[in-house]
Amino acid sequence: MPHTPQYSGLLTDLYELTMAAGYLETGFDARATFELFVRSLPPRRNYLAAAGLDQALDFLEGVSFSGDEIAYLRTLPVFQAIGDNFFDYLARFRFSGDVWAMPEGTVFFPGEPILRVTAPVIEAQIAETPLLAAINFQTMIASKAARVTQAAAGKNVIEFGTRRAHGTEAGVLAARAAMIGGCLGTSNVAAGKQFGIHVYGTQAHSWIMAHEDEEEAFRKFLDVFPDQAVLLVDTYDVHAAVEKIIAMGRKPRGIRLDSGDFAADSKWARKRLDQAGWKDVIIFASGDLEEDRIAQLLAEGSPIDGFGVGTALVNSIDSPSLGVIYKLVEIEYRGAVRSAAKFSREKVTYPGKKQVYRFHRPDGQFESDIIGLEDERFQHAEKLLQPVMTGGKRCLPRTNLFEARDRCRKQVLQLPEQLRHLTSELESSPVSHSEQLEHSLSEARRRLQAAARI
Amino acid sequence: MPHTPQYSGLLTDLYELTMAAGYLETGFDARATFELFVRSLPPRRNYLAAAGLDQALDFLEGVSFSGDEIAYLRTLPVFQAIGDNFFDYLARFRFSGDVWAMPEGTVFFPGEPILRVTAPVIEAQIAETPLLAAINFQTMIASKAARVTQAAAGKNVIEFGTRRAHGTEAGVLAARAAMIGGCLGTSNVAAGKQFGIHVYGTQAHSWIMAHEDEEEAFRKFLDVFPDQAVLLVDTYDVHAAVEKIIAMGRKPRGIRLDSGDFAADSKWARKRLDQAGWKDVIIFASGDLEEDRIAQLLAEGSPIDGFGVGTALVNSIDSPSLGVIYKLVEIEYRGAVRSAAKFSREKVTYPGKKQVYRFHRPDGQFESDIIGLEDERFQHAEKLLQPVMTGGKRCLPRTNLFEARDRCRKQVLQLPEQLRHLTSELESSPVSHSEQLEHSLSEARRRLQAAARI
Repeated sequence: MPHTPQYSGLLTDLYELTMAAGYLETGFDARATFELFVRSLPPRRNYLAAAGLDQALDFLEGVSFSGDEIAYLRTLPVFQAIGDNFFDYLARFRFSGDVWAMPEGTVFFPGEPILRVTAPVIEAQIAETPLLAAINFQTMIASKAARVTQAAAGKNVIEFGTRRAHGTEAGVLAARAAMIGGCLGTSNVAAGKQFGIHVYGTQAHSWIMAHEDEEEAFRKFLDVFPDQAVLLVDTYDVHAAVEKIIAMGRKPRGIRLDSGDFAADSKWARKRLDQAGWKDVIIFASGDLEEDRIAQLLAEGSPIDGFGVGTALVNSIDSPSLGVIYKLVEIEYRGAVRSAAKFSREKVTYPGKKQVYRFHRPDGQFESDIIGLEDERFQHAEKLLQPVMTGGKRCLPRTNLFEARDRCRKQVLQLPEQLRHLTSELESSPVSHSEQLEHSLSEARRRLQAAARI
Repeated sequence: MPHTPQYSGLLTDLYELTMAAGYLETGFDARATFELFVRSLPPRRNYLAAAGLDQALDFLEGVSFSGDEIAYLRTLPVFQAIGDNFFDYLARFRFSGDVWAMPEGTVFFPGEPILRVTAPVIEAQIAETPLLAAINFQTMIASKAARVTQAAAGKNVIEFGTRRAHGTEAGVLAARAAMIGGCLGTSNVAAGKQFGIHVYGTQAHSWIMAHEDEEEAFRKFLDVFPDQAVLLVDTYDVHAAVEKIIAMGRKPRGIRLDSGDFAADSKWARKRLDQAGWKDVIIFASGDLEEDRIAQLLAEGSPIDGFGVGTALVNSIDSPSLGVIYKLVEIEYRGAVRSAAKFSREKVTYPGKKQVYRFHRPDGQFESDIIGLEDERFQHAEKLLQPVMTGGKRCLPRTNLFEARDRCRKQVLQLPEQLRHLTSELESSPVSHSEQLEHSLSEARRRLQAAARI
């Protein structure tokens, strides 16, 4: 069964293609601008960290429809009345638009566009679903990782979640996003090779259980990895295992706790390892960890040097969906430019091409953001959106993940305490809209009410 | 940047490879049996539906290490003391083991192995992470889909979640798993082509907003899709939109509500469409739907013909992790067979190669399951695990998704009311262990306590 090619145009919702046929057949050759943003913060989040841009741009650079894929589309009932013109168009299809985006690792807030696409309306439409899938997922994971690493307060956090990821590709992408959010590395070897992320890991319970005797299992692993062995000590009994290692007199690089009372066991183990003269043997903990438990363990003075975080991280388990959306904000059709807005109940989409202006206090601390139109001028403001693709080609290098991680760490540290807080949710937003943008919204509302005759 | 090949041996946790090197370097050429199961039900679940087997077997049939990948492994600090022998082994690496599994769509319970691998220990070990990633994810989604479609009580459910999936591959796999769990189809076109799943979708808010006038937007879409158009009516005002369509006098295939009060709007729209003589125009609803809201809408008598379910389904949002694990249960080394078990605190792993025996009442209803050893005999029991791979090659055809969906639907319907209940959690398990298995566990406990000297 042939796998879907990575940049197949079919990796989208069917309605993007029916609308594409609709735009083409009715001659609606408009140029559209869509913005990608989050309407509101998910539970327990005061800030988000942008991630997934490289994969989004990879898709835009690579997307096409093969002959085989077009033959499949021709078989669909919805396209039975559609002529060759549309399928010929798909055969030539490439993304030719412009993209502005926040660099990966940027801390952002609801309402702020993190990516903006301007392209022929069909191209912008077909790109919607894969763009959202790329950015929604990695942004959710990077934002979770920022919380987890913040809780770890300088101790190392390794992403351990591949087995609980949404398939193998999701495992690799989760490792990437986790690094942007602050993780030191991952257990996922493919992510190590593909993205240059540091990889970690030593032995599982099965290694211990496969041997008749726990001491033999430790000894054999030390034989093979004399300088690298981090020994797993909770298969049967943590105290007995640590005593066996000390009695062998062969110093491992570290020990790993994967269950039990991490606070008590790490304190006891640290004391015994120190008594044995092994002050540099690290204690690593894994197993159902997340930011709350890590913060609690450290508050209790647990001498744990590093944390492996899996399921909770790669599924953002306390807040497992994000809600990034992609909304039409401007349309240019036959020379006329019209901004688009939406007002259904509490969902307001501001019209026009926007920019996010960030203000810092003199000491470098984050002060506030203003969402404005792209050509506004504010003194001392940093513009968060920058051009990343022109005419379908990247105009900036790919993300350096080490730089993206530094950016995220630095920006989180610049946030005031109330915004960085891990458990109390913020009452007021640090984001406002510019006067010009509010004015555009009022104008769009008047025009749309007239046009919709409601 | 080269993408990781789909069946790369690097799509695993690093510790699988360090253990592999350890087994090879110490000459531990054992044959191991691992079983894949769930220890306990996640919140709000009384049963689970197995899915992901085809992708798991695809990986086992295809897994290998390229020269490039091996060159990368040689650069890792952990492998600096490892000689050519291990890397030569990886260059020849293929999975040669045997696999037993439950057919996809099978309803199962905690403790029951849903897949069992018997292979040279290194092969079984390297397979752990990708097997878990494949089966944990799809099983979680199929189990959620079974709940959602059960709540829909015969109304159609379409999977709409690609944009909120964990990347594009996860979107395709979620569509597959959702179909096994009972969905009629998906919006994901690639899933349609790759797996033969029916695809659905018509227009988004952007189609309406791109046009100056809502009526013009409807009319143009009807021009292009005269028989297929399902018109989105909530962009500005549902009542005004439906009245416009009726006033145009051009019957669409259906209308879609994507926000607002679905119960009130669907009742009002049904009445107006019927008055217009359009009794066959369907009403479709989407937007933040899950099983509870669907059940409530139907309980309120909402005349909705189909539901699009996205975010909540593809992230199993009320219960966003599953916890499928892969445990060593038997090891054969130099002619001696030894069963493996684990007893750390409340986590007991039963030893030996197992089978799941299912019992039905005379009327066909599900009665109970017994987890026993593989060679036990029970009268009138259905054996749920069957051989699916021998010597690294599939010995059964790939899953027919229509059959898997039928299997799942039938088995859910066979469950007693308390097990099928969507909101009240079960107090007692319908699963027990055979006497032989309990006896094996006691023996393993005695032997392990002696071996671990604890």
